[in-house]
Amino acid sequence: MDDRQYEGLDAIFHPRSMAAVGVAERVENMGMSFLRGYRKMGFKGPLYAIHPQKKLAKFETFSSLEAVPGPVDFVQISLPARLVPGVVRECGRKGVRAVSIFSSGFRESGTAEGEALEEELVRAAREGGVRVIGPNCMGIYCPESGMSLRGDMTVAPDGELALLSQSGGIAISAVMAAAERGIGFCKAVSYGNECDLGPPELLPYLARDPKVRVICLYIEGTRRPEELRSALTAAAAQKPVVLLKGGATAAGSRAVSSHTGALTGTGEVWRALARQAGCSWAEDLDELIDLAMLYSLSAPPAGKRLGLLTISGGFGVFATDQVIRAGFEMPPLAAETREALAPYLSAPGTSLANPVDMAAKFFQPQNYETIFGALDRDPNFDAYLMIVAMEYMTYLGKNAKPWSEFVLKALIAAMKKIRRPIYVAFLHTAVDDIRLAHERTLIASRLPVFPTVARCLTAIERTMRLSGP
Amino acid sequence: MDDRQYEGLDAIFHPRSMAAVGVAERVENMGMSFLRGYRKMGFKGPLYAIHPQKKLAKFETFSSLEAVPGPVDFVQISLPARLVPGVVRECGRKGVRAVSIFSSGFRESGTAEGEALEEELVRAAREGGVRVIGPNCMGIYCPESGMSLRGDMTVAPDGELALLSQSGGIAISAVMAAAERGIGFCKAVSYGNECDLGPPELLPYLARDPKVRVICLYIEGTRRPEELRSALTAAAAQKPVVLLKGGATAAGSRAVSSHTGALTGTGEVWRALARQAGCSWAEDLDELIDLAMLYSLSAPPAGKRLGLLTISGGFGVFATDQVIRAGFEMPPLAAETREALAPYLSAPGTSLANPVDMAAKFFQPQNYETIFGALDRDPNFDAYLMIVAMEYMTYLGKNAKPWSEFVLKALIAAMKKIRRPIYVAFLHTAVDDIRLAHERTLIASRLPVFPTVARCLTAIERTMRLSGP
Repeated sequence: MDDRQYEGLDAIFHPRSMAAVGVAERVENMGMSFLRGYRKMGFKGPLYAIHPQKKLAKFETFSSLEAVPGPVDFVQISLPARLVPGVVRECGRKGVRAVSIFSSGFRESGTAEGEALEEELVRAAREGGVRVIGPNCMGIYCPESGMSLRGDMTVAPDGELALLSQSGGIAISAVMAAAERGIGFCKAVSYGNECDLGPPELLPYLARDPKVRVICLYIEGTRRPEELRSALTAAAAQKPVVLLKGGATAAGSRAVSSHTGALTGTGEVWRALARQAGCSWAEDLDELIDLAMLYSLSAPPAGKRLGLLTISGGFGVFATDQVIRAGFEMPPLAAETREALAPYLSAPGTSLANPVDMAAKFFQPQNYETIFGALDRDPNFDAYLMIVAMEYMTYLGKNAKPWSEFVLKALIAAMKKIRRPIYVAFLHTAVDDIRLAHERTLIASRLPVFPTVARCLTAIERTMRLSGP
Repeated sequence: MDDRQYEGLDAIFHPRSMAAVGVAERVENMGMSFLRGYRKMGFKGPLYAIHPQKKLAKFETFSSLEAVPGPVDFVQISLPARLVPGVVRECGRKGVRAVSIFSSGFRESGTAEGEALEEELVRAAREGGVRVIGPNCMGIYCPESGMSLRGDMTVAPDGELALLSQSGGIAISAVMAAAERGIGFCKAVSYGNECDLGPPELLPYLARDPKVRVICLYIEGTRRPEELRSALTAAAAQKPVVLLKGGATAAGSRAVSSHTGALTGTGEVWRALARQAGCSWAEDLDELIDLAMLYSLSAPPAGKRLGLLTISGGFGVFATDQVIRAGFEMPPLAAETREALAPYLSAPGTSLANPVDMAAKFFQPQNYETIFGALDRDPNFDAYLMIVAMEYMTYLGKNAKPWSEFVLKALIAAMKKIRRPIYVAFLHTAVDDIRLAHERTLIASRLPVFPTVARCLTAIERTMRLSGP
C-alpha cells in the first residue's frame, strides 16, 4: 500500500464533517442514533441532519446534502434501499469522500431487485468517486476522531486493537464487551455486504496503521477469496491477525446467505486459509477478544512449563487438571525456590508444590515481591499463572473495596517485576463491580487477565503457535 | 435414612445457639469472621465468642464453652490443630450437637503428627457424641437458619440447590457466583477432610430434604468409595445429582493430596462412577451451576430440534454453527409458521429461516406474544433458544434501563406461554449491572438464562442424558 492509498483510507476515518441522511425524531430512528453516537464520541466537526422538509431539534438540518454550505466528508445513509443510489449520486456531486450505508434490502435479500440495486449503487459510487462501507452495515468506529457504530456505544478507551466485521451486531458487541473489560479498539469497521471497501482494502491499511497492534476479523464469507487470502497473508506478516469465522457449518452457511449474501465455504477451507495466511484462529467472540488482548499485552512464553499460584486449594486442584488437559506442563519448584519461599509460605493450608498455595498468606501483601521474585528466579518455569478467586479480594465485608484495591496494587507491583510472562485468572464470583474495576486496573497495567483458567490457557496456547488454527 | 437419622442431621442445620472458639479482634481472624457471617445471615439465636482471657467487643464472650449458661448446639473451631481435640472433648461435655473445624494441619498435612491429631479428634468426637464437619473446611451455609461459610458471604436468596464440597474455596465461590446470577443454594457444606460427616451421610439427608431440588457435589477424592457409590446412586434416584471432580489428572491428583489428603483415582474411574450412579457430570464450576440451574427450572426437551430466535444476523450465523457442532438439529420453520409470522417479520434484515432473525422488529414488543405463539404451534421443534445480545437491550442511551426493563417484561410474558422448553442466551457486552439485573429477573421468572450459547447447549445436552457423563 503506497502513501497515497494509505492517506486516502485514513481520511475516511478522520472526516472534517459528517451528515446523516434518513433521519427522524423517533427515538428508534437509526439516522438520529448515528448522529447522537458521533456527538457522544466527541466528534469535533460539524454534524448535519439531512431532511427534505423538517428542521430537527438537536442537529443543524439541511434539506439536501448540496444545500450544506461547507464540505461534507462522510455521509451515513439509513434510507430505504431503493432511495440509496440516488443519495450516493448526490454524494458524488457534493464531493463526499465516503458513505456508510445502514440500509438493507440489497444483495443479501436474495432477490434480483436487491442485486440490481446494489449494482446501481456501486456504479453511482464509482462515477462520483465515493468510497462505500456496506450496505447492510453499522459503519465505522474510531474513538480518536469521534466516529461510532451506533448512538449508545460506550465511550471506551482508545486502544490498540482493530476490527473488521461483516456483522454489525458482532462489531458492536465486540467493541462493547472489550470496553467493559477495559480493552480498547482504536478502529472497527462493520462492512456488511462489502460492495466496495472490505478486508482486501482495509487489511493493508490497518497493517500499516501505527496505532494498531492486533487486527481482529469476523468474517462470514467472501466474493473475493484470492484478494482476501493475499491481504490476510500480507497483514499477518506485519502484526497478529485473529480470524473468527461465522457460518462454518452447512446450516450456519445457509444462515449467512440471508445475512450478508456472501459466498461461504466449509469450516475446513477457512481453517486452511487461516493456517496458510499465518493468522490466529478464534472459536468464538470471547476467544477473539481474549486472544487479541493477550497479543497486545504479552509475548508468548518460550515453553509450556507453567508455575501456578493459588489462594484456594480447590481451585488449585481444578486448575492443575485444566493445565494438564490443555497440554501444558507443571514441573515442581526448584529446591532453591522452595527454600526461599519456606519462611513465607509454611503455615497450615499453604503448599510449596506446584500449584503454590498461598492460602491465608495471601493476606500478607508485604511478602508478594519476595515470593514472586523467588519464583521468577526458578529455572523450571516458562510462565506463571496467578489464580485469584474474587471472594478473596472481597473478604472483609464492607472494607472489601479499599482492602482489595490495596491487595491488587501490591499484586500488580510484584507481577510487573517478573520477567517471564505472567497471566491472571480472575474467577468470577460475587461483587461484579469490584471485579470489573480490578480487571480494568490489571489491563491498564498491561497484565493480561481472564475470567476462567480455561480461557487463559486457550489464549496462551494459540499465541504460542507460529500460525494457524 | 430413617426419621431419626434425618432429624438428627437436620438439627445440625438448625442450631438454637452457636459459638466460635479461636476468636480475636484482628480483622483477618477467622473465628470472628464466622460470627460476623452468622449475624449477617440473620441467625436468630445467641452467638457466643469463647476467649479464655479477653472480652470481645461485638459478641457476648465467655472464657470457656462450659461457662456459657444456656445450651450451645453448634461450635465453630479455628484454633491451631493441636488444641482442637481438647476443645472437641469440651464440646462433648457441654452437649454440643456438631462442630465445624476450620483449622488445618491434620491428615492433609501428610505428616504422622497430623494424622494422629485427626484420629484423636475423631475419638474425642465419638466419645462425646459430637458430629464433626471438617477439619480443614468452611462449614455450613444455610440461609434459612442463618449459617454462613464466612463473614463476607453475600446474603443470597434462599434457593433450591444444595452443595457438598470438599473444598471451602469452591463452596464459597459456587454459592457467591450463583447468588450473583440470582440462583440460590438452600444448603451448602464445605466438608474438608471428612473425618466424620461427608457425602455418604449428607447425600441421603439432602435427597430427602423437601427444599432441595438439585444436589451439587464437588469432590476431590474419598476414603470410602463403596459408601460414596451407594449414597450417590440412592440420591440420584430421587433428584438430579451433578458431580464435579477435582484432581482428575495425575498432576491434579498430586495437588489433592496436599489439599485434603483424600485418595483420588483417575478421571475415568470417576466418570464411570458418575455414569453407574446416574449422576450428571460437570467439567467446571460454571458448568456445575449452569446445569444445576437448568435442572431446577426446566425439564429436558423431548428431542434435539431447536428453533432459534435472534436479533442480530451475525450472532445467528454463529449460534447456528455452535448448535450443529453440539449435535443439535435446526429444522426449517413449518409453512404455516412462516405464513403466520410473515406480517410481523418481513422487513429488510429479518429472516423467516431458522434462526428467525427479528432484526429491528425486536423493537416492537407488542408482537412478541403473536410471534412466540406461532413458533410454539410449529411441530418442527422440541425447544427454543432466544439469543439476546445485551447491546439491543441497552439501546437508546440513557433510556436504556427503563426501556430494556419494558422489553424484558414483554419477552418474559411471551416466553412463559411457550409450552416446550425455552432457553435464553444473554450474551455479555457492556453495562453489566443491567445485564445482571435482567438475568436475575429471568431466573426469578423461572426461565433458564446463560451467558453464552455454548454453555446453554452443553447444559441442555447434559440434562437430556438419562444419566452419566
